Amino acid sequence: MENQKLKVGIVGGTGYTGVELLRLLATHPDVEIAAVTSRGEAGLAVAELFPSLRGYVDVSFSNPENADLSACDVVFFATPHGVAMRQAPALLASNTKVIDLAADFRLQDSAVFEQWYNMPHSCPDVLQASVYGIAELNREQIKKANVIANPGCYPTTVLLGLLPLLEHAYIDYTAPIIADAKSGVSGAGRKAAVPTLFSEASDNMKAYGVSGHRHHPEIEAQLKQLASADLQFIFTPHLVPMIRGMLTTLYVKLTDDAKAVDLQSVYAQRYEHEGFVDVLPKGSLPETRSVRGSNHLRIALQPQANGYLTVVVVQDNLVKGAAGQAVQNMNIMFGLEEQQGLGVVPLMP
Amino acid sequence: MENQKLKVGIVGGTGYTGVELLRLLATHPDVEIAAVTSRGEAGLAVAELFPSLRGYVDVSFSNPENADLSACDVVFFATPHGVAMRQAPALLASNTKVIDLAADFRLQDSAVFEQWYNMPHSCPDVLQASVYGIAELNREQIKKANVIANPGCYPTTVLLGLLPLLEHAYIDYTAPIIADAKSGVSGAGRKAAVPTLFSEASDNMKAYGVSGHRHHPEIEAQLKQLASADLQFIFTPHLVPMIRGMLTTLYVKLTDDAKAVDLQSVYAQRYEHEGFVDVLPKGSLPETRSVRGSNHLRIALQPQANGYLTVVVVQDNLVKGAAGQAVQNMNIMFGLEEQQGLGVVPLMP
Amino acid sequence: MENQKLKVGIVGGTGYTGVELLRLLATHPDVEIAAVTSRGEAGLAVAELFPSLRGYVDVSFSNPENADLSACDVVFFATPHGVAMRQAPALLASNTKVIDLAADFRLQDSAVFEQWYNMPHSCPDVLQASVYGIAELNREQIKKANVIANPGCYPTTVLLGLLPLLEHAYIDYTAPIIADAKSGVSGAGRKAAVPTLFSEASDNMKAYGVSGHRHHPEIEAQLKQLASADLQFIFTPHLVPMIRGMLTTLYVKLTDDAKAVDLQSVYAQRYEHEGFVDVLPKGSLPETRSVRGSNHLRIALQPQANGYLTVVVVQDNLVKGAAGQAVQNMNIMFGLEEQQGLGVVPLMP
Amino acid sequence: MENQKLKVGIVGGTGYTGVELLRLLATHPDVEIAAVTSRGEAGLAVAELFPSLRGYVDVSFSNPENADLSACDVVFFATPHGVAMRQAPALLASNTKVIDLAADFRLQDSAVFEQWYNMPHSCPDVLQASVYGIAELNREQIKKANVIANPGCYPTTVLLGLLPLLEHAYIDYTAPIIADAKSGVSGAGRKAAVPTLFSEASDNMKAYGVSGHRHHPEIEAQLKQLASADLQFIFTPHLVPMIRGMLTTLYVKLTDDAKAVDLQSVYAQRYEHEGFVDVLPKGSLPETRSVRGSNHLRIALQPQANGYLTVVVVQDNLVKGAAGQAVQNMNIMFGLEEQQGLGVVPLMP
Repeated sequence: MENQKLKVGIVGGTGYTGVELLRLLATHPDVEIAAVTSRGEAGLAVAELFPSLRGYVDVSFSNPENADLSACDVVFFATPHGVAMRQAPALLASNTKVIDLAADFRLQDSAVFEQWYNMPHSCPDVLQASVYGIAELNREQIKKANVIANPGCYPTTVLLGLLPLLEHAYIDYTAPIIADAKSGVSGAGRKAAVPTLFSEASDNMKAYGVSGHRHHPEIEAQLKQLASADLQFIFTPHLVPMIRGMLTTLYVKLTDDAKAVDLQSVYAQRYEHEGFVDVLPKGSLPETRSVRGSNHLRIALQPQANGYLTVVVVQDNLVKGAAGQAVQNMNIMFGLEEQQGLGVVPLMP
Repeated sequence: MENQKLKVGIVGGTGYTGVELLRLLATHPDVEIAAVTSRGEAGLAVAELFPSLRGYVDVSFSNPENADLSACDVVFFATPHGVAMRQAPALLASNTKVIDLAADFRLQDSAVFEQWYNMPHSCPDVLQASVYGIAELNREQIKKANVIANPGCYPTTVLLGLLPLLEHAYIDYTAPIIADAKSGVSGAGRKAAVPTLFSEASDNMKAYGVSGHRHHPEIEAQLKQLASADLQFIFTPHLVPMIRGMLTTLYVKLTDDAKAVDLQSVYAQRYEHEGFVDVLPKGSLPETRSVRGSNHLRIALQPQANGYLTVVVVQDNLVKGAAGQAVQNMNIMFGLEEQQGLGVVPLMP
Repeated sequence: MENQKLKVGIVGGTGYTGVELLRLLATHPDVEIAAVTSRGEAGLAVAELFPSLRGYVDVSFSNPENADLSACDVVFFATPHGVAMRQAPALLASNTKVIDLAADFRLQDSAVFEQWYNMPHSCPDVLQASVYGIAELNREQIKKANVIANPGCYPTTVLLGLLPLLEHAYIDYTAPIIADAKSGVSGAGRKAAVPTLFSEASDNMKAYGVSGHRHHPEIEAQLKQLASADLQFIFTPHLVPMIRGMLTTLYVKLTDDAKAVDLQSVYAQRYEHEGFVDVLPKGSLPETRSVRGSNHLRIALQPQANGYLTVVVVQDNLVKGAAGQAVQNMNIMFGLEEQQGLGVVPLMP
Repeated sequence: MENQKLKVGIVGGTGYTGVELLRLLATHPDVEIAAVTSRGEAGLAVAELFPSLRGYVDVSFSNPENADLSACDVVFFATPHGVAMRQAPALLASNTKVIDLAADFRLQDSAVFEQWYNMPHSCPDVLQASVYGIAELNREQIKKANVIANPGCYPTTVLLGLLPLLEHAYIDYTAPIIADAKSGVSGAGRKAAVPTLFSEASDNMKAYGVSGHRHHPEIEAQLKQLASADLQFIFTPHLVPMIRGMLTTLYVKLTDDAKAVDLQSVYAQRYEHEGFVDVLPKGSLPETRSVRGSNHLRIALQPQANGYLTVVVVQDNLVKGAAGQAVQNMNIMFGLEEQQGLGVVPLMP
């Protein structure tokens, strides 16, 4: 297989997760970007729309109809919800693997999917065979997967932030798990909309999602599966005036067992061999810029006097929360070095 | 006339100049907001769209068709170009004065208007009778005007920044006048558009207007009139990641006469009795936040060793550059105290 | 008393709470700014340090030693902790009232004060006679007070956010009260420090206060007094890249009584006659810019499916969270209209 | 020389140019970071001060006295002015090359240096042998140099923006060259100071340097040398609320010769083989984020109707304007691939 690069397709290359995939894949040594589709920008050089890619990406956007995606080894969907599930069966039939950065394969219960996304699921069998793409949780399944549901940005922080506790049954589920989450504005995507204009979102902060956020059922389902228990989950997403970055503050009630152990060590051991999850030393708290542009996620524990634990998690929502995690999944699926293409040092300041 | 408040209408109340008019007029003691129109938001309470106005503005948006604007004493047009000129004749016929914050009456030469705005001028006679609303330049005409062309934000800084030089013929027109202007993002308005998204405009700066900016002919026409001479004008607008604020750096070549006088005194004397134009002491330079939210414009002179002069001007683009200047014009037109409703102390920090 | 303005002194006029007091008092019709002290800037015109105040404030900073503060009717302390308590006794002896914006009088238990502020309390008797200055809670005592402990910014949001619940005993104290609070950077003050540099704090978010925040004991003491019960309180402050603004998200477990009532109405009734506390309509969530520059605080309720309630509170940390609340207290102490000098419409955008 | 990495020392590793050198060198395949000195932080792990470097940089800060810099192949000085010139002679004596990111070797005329930096030059002979480190201008000399004066950020934009014109004598020097330059706040460094606090610099813009900026004589000297003519230079630096990024707008009067040629082609040809200088297509204008985090500098030409030319240049002030250019110089000095370690794709958004 030497010298033979993976042929990669990106469907929907004009949004932030699309251009972020391009940024990461542009210098990935084992990858060739074969096609980037966009209905609206077909024919335009990618680097003309995104001058940051001048000299790094030579392809032009192609019309989805004309792109021969089935010739790709893997296709990333950086599209609105509903696109990947329509195209996945045909791609799978031609041995092309699929990594969906939207929600089409995130909810195993297709009734819940339908309720939150207002569309029936078009390929429940593919859904069932898909793998939820958090490498630190499902690495072995990812190796064998043909379809990856790349997790939402918020779920990534909550799940990796609580994983060691969940696996040890260290959470007392009589109290709800609370996730107070804060996201940079790029999480809302690159579509023209008044609420995310600079003059609206800058020097301003708000909670949003009064009627519920679509990541709520995704997180809840994963939590319940990991807990093997029923539990209650309260989730408040907030919008913060920064481009990239997500900080999630988690509040859980500990079991008596948990109070008797050194949770700092529990976390350190759990993530000891994970290249992208960093447990900070006792007494420190992370800031979002410490992961800016990189696939790292950092976790800090702040024990409370009253048997509760606060966990603070940061990531770059566009990298570990989206495109970076997708590339990590691709690397695993194709037997590449897991960190390949993801060696960008965080940009600070 | 005691106790009798001016009845004011605002056409197009959902953009930034519209909501800024509302902010200023809400506490103006001599004004009653009679109607705020919006086709898209008709029926909605203004304070529901703009919660900052809760408790200050009680009216709802009304449909332009239903609003009885002719019952108003004055109507502000905070609309796209072309709206005011269509409605002005009827309003004038019913003794309603018009203040247009768009460009319909800014260019006396209707051929130039047509060239830059891609539409014929629908009421050249009204245009001819209109007054260009910079109080510090045209106060006497404003008193008698029925239609005010409220100046563009960039032109306000250039013209007030050069006025004392122009009036004294202190500029050597063999070299071009250069205006390197920087605007906060709110100048682009409150319409959904990708380039002014937070994630695009934040932590970023650019020059724009390659093919020319519509304020170029407006400034040039005013400069030539004030200079009574032909002259050359170079104008580069830039977009800066701040919500409000405009800073214009002007470069002019001085005449020999000018080199022999104390220009600092010339400026100080010219603006001595102007409540909104502030000439800073020698050796200081202004910053935009020193006028944030207020109708002040500040000017500093920076003499160069080589017979050139640099003039630095700051204003809040939404206030002195738009809504505040419009209220100032209204005050003058109706014989009110010129500073009425404009007493907001700049917000710092 | 007509025509006779209150003589006001400000000790420590160079920080953000100091300059914010100046912004508000500059146009307060019943106030004369008699003295603004600063050891470092003595002799300098206030408006030279803060050009935003040009034309509004004519005084110069005076040396604390030379300022005749005892001739003032009221003195605001916008100083580091420990200054007000040293000067308060002498001022009180000369009939000058004191409003301390630092923490000297916020903790009635002087042992707790000493523990958190590393200094003994120098005037426990004055402390005992002082009043905690939240008008919506202690208006009657404020009327008669000679010394006001102006509350911290975080405590103001937590206490006003929970007041209706606390007064009705609607919180189940078997679960901790959780306050996940987010502050703009101006809360850290105007002192040169690396962590609050633009290049450090911009495009970045973090939790802070690993070893505890001084507002923790302040909030806890007030909560316990209002609850007449022991309770547990978890508090996580975060720093957000905006100049002004504070958003606090509160999580409480409701009692069965509380579940049976319409909490939205409970809040609406509690604050019906409060000019500065605004309960938002059901289904809305506040944003910080809706109070930018103003003394308003807005509250929204978000009921959870599991017997918990989320309360979201926003304020401008420098106004209702500091200088505005101080002016509100002054107005009450001197029998002035409570809203006097506080009529600034929030700046949006 | 295989397998043998360059031993690199960094003097002053706690400022922004220092940490930026660390970011770039951390993944440079031919480099080993041998020593990072800091008097204030000696003993602290670099990654503890800068968590963004966790996992990438393992060294601790060492005390300048103890660091054996003479064992390094090259030492970068990311220090205040005056440090490099004191240490350079000893390092050169032990065959260690020096790259100074401060100003010690930027001005060949030591009298001018003394005037602007208030200190005599301590090693005029080293100064004379040093090379001004713009690779696109002095690549051959850099190859042989032992001491590099790494250019200031502003000079880099002005010189590369005008180089093709200067080399062809296309500028009419009867009019001054005007550089209206805008810098992100990181250009002011990582030292605690009030004017660069977030709450001061955010949502704000200003011109600065009333009494002259130290880059003025540096630019002027280089311009005159390239022009082989006397000329006049007007320079106005501005501070813009962004972390990184510099945009310089240049205004020059063209000679008649210049008006007769296609300047777009002149620029394109001049920089055809330069990996880090990008001439944008006719009709486009650059934005700073298109180079964020990268060593690229982009140039656009905007011809004016009146025989003037506007040139717009962007770079990341910390990379091509400082640390990236320094690494580029190191690569050249040691015969490495010029782009080594500088392959970071710009971070967008």
